[in-house]
Amino acid sequence: MKGNVIVGQSGGPTAAINSSLAGVYRTAKDRGAKKVYGMLHGIQGLLEEKYIDLSNHITTELDAELLKRTPAAFLGSCRYKLPEIHEDRELYDRIFEILNKLEIEAFIYIGGNDSMDTIKKLSDYAIITGHPTRFIGCPKTIDNDLALTDHTPGYGSAAKYIGTSMKEIIRDSFCLEYSKGLVTIVEVMGRNAGWLTGASALAQGEDCEGPDMIYLPELPFDIVDFRDRVKALLEKKTSVVVAISEGICTADGKYVCELGNSVDFVDAFGHKQLSGTAAYLASYIAGEIGCKTRAIELSTLQRAAAHSSSRVDILEAYQVGGAAVKAADEGDTGKMVVLQRLSDDPYQCGTEVKDVHKIANDEKLVPRNWVSKDGTYVTNEFISYVKPLIQGDVSPVMVDGIPRHLLTPKELCER
Amino acid sequence: MKGNVIVGQSGGPTAAINSSLAGVYRTAKDRGAKKVYGMLHGIQGLLEEKYIDLSNHITTELDAELLKRTPAAFLGSCRYKLPEIHEDRELYDRIFEILNKLEIEAFIYIGGNDSMDTIKKLSDYAIITGHPTRFIGCPKTIDNDLALTDHTPGYGSAAKYIGTSMKEIIRDSFCLEYSKGLVTIVEVMGRNAGWLTGASALAQGEDCEGPDMIYLPELPFDIVDFRDRVKALLEKKTSVVVAISEGICTADGKYVCELGNSVDFVDAFGHKQLSGTAAYLASYIAGEIGCKTRAIELSTLQRAAAHSSSRVDILEAYQVGGAAVKAADEGDTGKMVVLQRLSDDPYQCGTEVKDVHKIANDEKLVPRNWVSKDGTYVTNEFISYVKPLIQGDVSPVMVDGIPRHLLTPKELCER
Repeated sequence: MKGNVIVGQSGGPTAAINSSLAGVYRTAKDRGAKKVYGMLHGIQGLLEEKYIDLSNHITTELDAELLKRTPAAFLGSCRYKLPEIHEDRELYDRIFEILNKLEIEAFIYIGGNDSMDTIKKLSDYAIITGHPTRFIGCPKTIDNDLALTDHTPGYGSAAKYIGTSMKEIIRDSFCLEYSKGLVTIVEVMGRNAGWLTGASALAQGEDCEGPDMIYLPELPFDIVDFRDRVKALLEKKTSVVVAISEGICTADGKYVCELGNSVDFVDAFGHKQLSGTAAYLASYIAGEIGCKTRAIELSTLQRAAAHSSSRVDILEAYQVGGAAVKAADEGDTGKMVVLQRLSDDPYQCGTEVKDVHKIANDEKLVPRNWVSKDGTYVTNEFISYVKPLIQGDVSPVMVDGIPRHLLTPKELCER
Repeated sequence: MKGNVIVGQSGGPTAAINSSLAGVYRTAKDRGAKKVYGMLHGIQGLLEEKYIDLSNHITTELDAELLKRTPAAFLGSCRYKLPEIHEDRELYDRIFEILNKLEIEAFIYIGGNDSMDTIKKLSDYAIITGHPTRFIGCPKTIDNDLALTDHTPGYGSAAKYIGTSMKEIIRDSFCLEYSKGLVTIVEVMGRNAGWLTGASALAQGEDCEGPDMIYLPELPFDIVDFRDRVKALLEKKTSVVVAISEGICTADGKYVCELGNSVDFVDAFGHKQLSGTAAYLASYIAGEIGCKTRAIELSTLQRAAAHSSSRVDILEAYQVGGAAVKAADEGDTGKMVVLQRLSDDPYQCGTEVKDVHKIANDEKLVPRNWVSKDGTYVTNEFISYVKPLIQGDVSPVMVDGIPRHLLTPKELCER
């Protein structure tokens, strides 16, 4: 590379997103990039010329290792949707002016569906205007809902955390209840795609039955049928544990969490903010069956728990970052790096690049035949798919009993 | 020992309670106990003659290692309060009949304040009736609120999990918010004692500022002052993270979680069930300041996250179990094993036994001078106290990407 590289992070953070950043940095440096800039808070910060020179933050090889083990977006994230090109050409001109000033040869954006939309629009604009900067997307999302890639970096670590925590919750639940029966409802992230909720089945093993039922958002949720199934389970066992997606909806399209209250909160991308699904169901079941219930939201830690990340995931995230820089260096633009699974057992997976136009805004859902007929569990196909992605651990660098992370850029914390 | 030993677990489980069980089992076997029985669901199960022979479950040395790494009460727990002796002598007679039948020489009960009450009453009854069985309590509680012991097994692992998760949440929060300001309120367990909430300060280090404020339940909570402090912080930084105890109360003694709704749920020991404190404050702050807010409950995983336990804690829990058997074997009864800290640096800690009458139902709170003057943080004394307790890790035995636990006794799961 002769010019400079700029990299940004966008959307919900993950435990692996900084490993991709480390991969971008290392590969760009190895390929001769003079400067590797990091946008602060993605494209939104770049518009205000907020960026850092990553060499000032990753000064040693140990720093790069710490970065791989640091959760959340090191550079700060954003949820900023670029307008269509024809709606605001000035905005695009401003971005490209900044890219010119920084002599950017490659622009790498690490993110999910919304971020790939940014890559698509910027690469389109560059092609229209004959601008030489190349734009490559680097997949990232715990939701695993990106099209064309076998899976997304970030998903494996989240799945491992969910499987582990679910198993611990099941132990906790078994030991608590003696006679009357206890129903524990665990709410897992995933608005429309059930990849994360399905991963709760990973708790299953010789030493654990796993959750009793798993409800994905892909299928309509029948609350009366749910109640009856819980009731039947309580006749056989004292503790019933159910994993549900935050996004489950009734057959008429109403979110279950909206059955109880009327909060209706929409983010910058027009996504409804959901929460309280487990709490609603716990109070519903308590009222209907008269047993004890509790609601547990796995919440933010699903994406932030770097202390429990998957080695396969962290390594793949790093590779994907490197592959993005390589693709840009070799002349690609308007592409996203994807993971291509070659085999399940032994697990083998490589990277490729694909046209970002085929990916952006297209949500990959759990196939119907990976969910049991009655819609209350995932199948063995699902488990065979996810199991390779949670293998191996990344030991946190422990200092004084707590995992050490790479120091947050000062600019991120202050006003 | 010539007779048999019976051991039970009671109260809220922890990540270390089974390490104490392993210590009881190993030491009892080493000292010649013929049988080591485990009560299922504590004294409540024993009353229905529900128990297992632990030799059928811990058959190899690997099993014992797995048991140390298995969260929640392996034997099942209960929240069962014995009546006063004069209120129901028949009940006591029934218990002692079962103990006679099983030829129990030593009765070990692993639990918190309520469990020590059980040890007190049973040992009193044995003394009154001249019964030879000896009763020893083994401290356990994530709450760390037991008197006379420097700290309780279970607390160190919970503190480590809280410090680690808090640090991950702080990273997650920093990266999310760009301009408008985000207030994250993290709810930590601890009804009356702030030991767990104070442990959130462990997130602090060269690489992390730690939470911005910490509110313990020992001090009255002033919601208007809280709002003003959050407002002032938001002028300096975009992300404000606050740790609060679930049990914080206003000056007139009202739980903060009750300000919003009227749920008033009491458990078998007369403790109010609390939750929703963070949710209430998040919606209050959003309304008052107009910034984004989010509420995170660390919930059950605080006590169940064996995957992140402290080596010091797991080892001490094991020692305390062994010391309980030793004390009983040497003729003690009506005692609890306590941890006696000899020095902070290097950390040294031994076990002793103390009269359970001095312990039962006496809650140890965080001293006022371990909280800052303005009541919004813990002091260095607090941090020096807790830091040795979170040192070292216990590698989970990973099988196929997920921690392996010792198989739950079948009797615990089924009706």
